[in-house]
Amino acid sequence: MRGTVLHAPGDVRVEERPDPSIEQPTDAIIRLSATCVCGSDLWPYRGVDASDGPAPMGHEYCGIVQEVGRDVTTIRPGQFVIGSFFASDNTCEICRAGYQSSCIHREPVGAIGTQAEYARIPLADGTLVATPEVPDADLIPSYLAASDVLGTGWFGAVAAEVGPGKTVVVVGDGAVGLHGVLAASQLGAERIILMSRHESRQKLALDYGATDIVEARGDDGVVRIKDLTDGLGAHSTIEAVGTRQSMLQAIGATRPGGHVGYVGVTHGDLPGLPLFFSHTHLHGGPAPVRRFLPDLIERISSGAIDPGKVFDLTLPLDQAAEGYRAMDERRAIKTLLTV
Amino acid sequence: MRGTVLHAPGDVRVEERPDPSIEQPTDAIIRLSATCVCGSDLWPYRGVDASDGPAPMGHEYCGIVQEVGRDVTTIRPGQFVIGSFFASDNTCEICRAGYQSSCIHREPVGAIGTQAEYARIPLADGTLVATPEVPDADLIPSYLAASDVLGTGWFGAVAAEVGPGKTVVVVGDGAVGLHGVLAASQLGAERIILMSRHESRQKLALDYGATDIVEARGDDGVVRIKDLTDGLGAHSTIEAVGTRQSMLQAIGATRPGGHVGYVGVTHGDLPGLPLFFSHTHLHGGPAPVRRFLPDLIERISSGAIDPGKVFDLTLPLDQAAEGYRAMDERRAIKTLLTV
Repeated sequence: MRGTVLHAPGDVRVEERPDPSIEQPTDAIIRLSATCVCGSDLWPYRGVDASDGPAPMGHEYCGIVQEVGRDVTTIRPGQFVIGSFFASDNTCEICRAGYQSSCIHREPVGAIGTQAEYARIPLADGTLVATPEVPDADLIPSYLAASDVLGTGWFGAVAAEVGPGKTVVVVGDGAVGLHGVLAASQLGAERIILMSRHESRQKLALDYGATDIVEARGDDGVVRIKDLTDGLGAHSTIEAVGTRQSMLQAIGATRPGGHVGYVGVTHGDLPGLPLFFSHTHLHGGPAPVRRFLPDLIERISSGAIDPGKVFDLTLPLDQAAEGYRAMDERRAIKTLLTV
Repeated sequence: MRGTVLHAPGDVRVEERPDPSIEQPTDAIIRLSATCVCGSDLWPYRGVDASDGPAPMGHEYCGIVQEVGRDVTTIRPGQFVIGSFFASDNTCEICRAGYQSSCIHREPVGAIGTQAEYARIPLADGTLVATPEVPDADLIPSYLAASDVLGTGWFGAVAAEVGPGKTVVVVGDGAVGLHGVLAASQLGAERIILMSRHESRQKLALDYGATDIVEARGDDGVVRIKDLTDGLGAHSTIEAVGTRQSMLQAIGATRPGGHVGYVGVTHGDLPGLPLFFSHTHLHGGPAPVRRFLPDLIERISSGAIDPGKVFDLTLPLDQAAEGYRAMDERRAIKTLLTV
């Protein structure tokens, strides 16, 4: 099959890779309907995260089940399924508490690589969620978004305790931040302030339910948020970048007793004393997307949300390298790869 | 009046200081019944926190109201009162949310210094809580403990979401950690594991309700906690030290989705990536003791708890220097100073 491989920073190639096969009786093989490039793929692409040797890429996926192992009972060939970037058994105590991405049997799907024609998904029963029927092509981008960026933005909002009457700040205008806006809107937030300097992202955010845009950053941005919130700060802040600077901005924008939901992969140390005296709650980590998938599928199939709008560049799988370049240069918010 | 002053690291003196007087119409003057030395007083005493010039010391207090400003309406001369280390109006939006130590009008009582005969307490109506009657002498140590170490340990337990059926780990066997044990017991925890190597502290912890003691520290301590919790970690961990190392230990001891309540003043940066992948909730900061005082007073006056046991050294105010030394050398858990 054809699959995407990162050979070195900046060097993404689509090349022939071995067809996957059932390795464990709990596996499923899916034929990708679409896949995409994640903001976190840019960390190794930019050389910020070290990589040793060629690595298959991609951890977002949806598609048609081709084959299942003998212990798979709820997923059947022919179903259209969506899964998350950690395979999970969905039965252990940690999964039952809603933290499937810390499942005691978790496996990173990114190590398998879903920017490809086919993928082996471990723990299929606990990982994959089937849609009621095979969807029309126009719904596929939205289902694909549920696999990571929507699910991750949603977790950011839930971790930040977004709810009715709340003022929410979103730090980060990438695909995850924008879906934090969408989640906040769906969860009933009264006011949603996106921190962004990019016009195309601002537009999509307003479409997703943002009520205010703040262009200032860092300390200036925090001052502006305080101005907008009676000097107190937001009730809930979604941090969707993952740098020390963005985390300081998120903490500073939040009122004492408020909640920061952080879902950008954290690079660097966190400032201890400012966090201590901020009196904020901090929660986040790799999103347990599996927790939210049934609800997200329902909202997509009913037409309540259209997260597929986030894909502003669609390319065939063979042009994955251009998809990475466009995101790296911020010419695209998010690249969908047709398979 | 006589009052305690830190002149330089290790140099604590009791000397003549000006009698306090009403400065704002919302002030009260109290005659201290007892005061004490806090673990956090040891940071400047040890030179870990820089100090510039002589500084009055002490922020824990209870005593008899002598005089009140003309705007004070709920506190009256003659009452026995307890307050916390931040004065608060107890009416602003942040106070109403339960974060009085981040009150928009807060004032640090430590800048005034309560290791003295008298103290001026700002915002008396919002800061001080009166007991139903002037207590017998034997209850005074317990009421004094409520002013900080009990209130802070209690906040640590509440921030860690301690409750019935939960397994709780306490990192730190100082006075705050020990009161974290007491709080966890009162709040119905099923299992309370103290990490401690000091026999006298272990004894008091068992008396306060600890069910297990772990002597191992750092990574070894985390392994031991995992062994005791089916490999998962605690539901709730109270961090009562404030170093990077103790924070790593607390995060490592907590299961994904669990809660860390941290109340040791955080010194140093927090490790971003281990926190991110821990999936824990993190909440804490300077305890809003005022939130808990009415409940704590009720528990003390009814005899349900006896936090005064934590004072294992009692000295007259004039011997404050020896009180500091004994705590610095870990000969005493906590020093009460009679006034």
